[in-house]
Amino acid sequence: MTDWLPTLKTATPQEGYDLAVKMARVAVKMTQPDADVRDKLRPIYAEDANALIASSQIVATHFATVAAANDYWRAPDVDD
Amino acid sequence: MTDWLPTLKTATPQEGYDLAVKMARVAVKMTQPDADVRDKLRPIYAEDANALIASSQIVATHFATVAAANDYWRAPDVDD
Amino acid sequence: MTDWLPTLKTATPQEGYDLAVKMARVAVKMTQPDADVRDKLRPIYAEDANALIASSQIVATHFATVAAANDYWRAPDVDD
Amino acid sequence: MTDWLPTLKTATPQEGYDLAVKMARVAVKMTQPDADVRDKLRPIYAEDANALIASSQIVATHFATVAAANDYWRAPDVDD
Amino acid sequence: MTDWLPTLKTATPQEGYDLAVKMARVAVKMTQPDADVRDKLRPIYAEDANALIASSQIVATHFATVAAANDYWRAPDVDD
Amino acid sequence: MTDWLPTLKTATPQEGYDLAVKMARVAVKMTQPDADVRDKLRPIYAEDANALIASSQIVATHFATVAAANDYWRAPDVDD
Repeated sequence: MTDWLPTLKTATPQEGYDLAVKMARVAVKMTQPDADVRDKLRPIYAEDANALIASSQIVATHFATVAAANDYWRAPDVDD
Repeated sequence: MTDWLPTLKTATPQEGYDLAVKMARVAVKMTQPDADVRDKLRPIYAEDANALIASSQIVATHFATVAAANDYWRAPDVDD
Repeated sequence: MTDWLPTLKTATPQEGYDLAVKMARVAVKMTQPDADVRDKLRPIYAEDANALIASSQIVATHFATVAAANDYWRAPDVDD
Repeated sequence: MTDWLPTLKTATPQEGYDLAVKMARVAVKMTQPDADVRDKLRPIYAEDANALIASSQIVATHFATVAAANDYWRAPDVDD
Repeated sequence: MTDWLPTLKTATPQEGYDLAVKMARVAVKMTQPDADVRDKLRPIYAEDANALIASSQIVATHFATVAAANDYWRAPDVDD
Repeated sequence: MTDWLPTLKTATPQEGYDLAVKMARVAVKMTQPDADVRDKLRPIYAEDANALIASSQIVATHFATVAAANDYWRAPDVDD
């Protein structure tokens, strides 16, 4: 997995959210590197309410980090 | 899902809270893009006490981010 | 639910804690708007140890936000 | 429950930790005001490994807030 | 339990991590003061995968606090 | 386990993520020092969806700390 996270900077909050989703997924990949096993587990994430909710919590935690890294997309980039 | 999160800025804490609820829901949508499956799972969120509590935790995490992004709605917007 | 969160500012840490409890409850209301269903679920929150603990975690998360919003009630309001 | 949280300021990290433990307990009290029911649930907290661990997580969250409120007990109070 | 947490300051990140592990353990001790009961529960922590993971989450939360208290061990202590 | 965490500083976000994964693993090691027991538990982490998700949450928490320690890799290192 090379170069999947070159920066935490994103242009918009929504792109930051997409990055948070990606970051949540990579941890799973690193804990379970076998793609076959992951494929077997994926339906569980996606169709079990509790697993879906727990996944969303991870996204929320990563988004907090990405948002801070982008200073909450607060400042206009005009004069930067 | 285009342009659902253009900014983290909201006028009031309550609007910030509504945004946090929305952000919590989107993660579910991105993990389970099939609306039919989600419709099947929704009653579980809504009628299972533990799932409801877990969902509230995600909202709390996102609200923390939104609140920080809005500097806790602390400063009056008068001279800004 | 109009105007339930006009500000994160409270006079004391204890009022901030009360606000955090309220914020934790509202998420439940927004996920399950049907009061009858909520009434059915409430005994579960209140009499199941795990649900009680999980609810307390949400309060803790919201309190962190409220405390930051109030600058931890650190500065005396005298000269402000 | 009057005046149980007048301040987040404590003299030492350890007193701050004690306060965090207290804050974790109060949320339980506010969710389940009936002391008889709480007495029935207490053995569960104390003798179930998962409940004990979950309770410790709440303490950790509150301690983070208390520590920030005390500026991590970093600065000497000499000239304050 | 006297004087177990005199400071959050540590010389290195690793010592900070050790402190976080200690802080996670103390909460268990304060919730369940009976050493015999704790001894009975300890094998559960140590041999149940979910309990182990949940314990690690608490360590992570405390480490975040300790790291902030040490300004992430960022600045050299030379001129301080 | 000597000198496994000399610094929180990393060159890139991705290296920071790798460090977060490592930090999550060490807590398990410290709670369960017996390598044989850990070997027995590892398949559970890796093949149980809920355990995988919970592990990812710990990584997310540690990454938040590492990211803050690196000032989110925001500033160019040119003049540093």
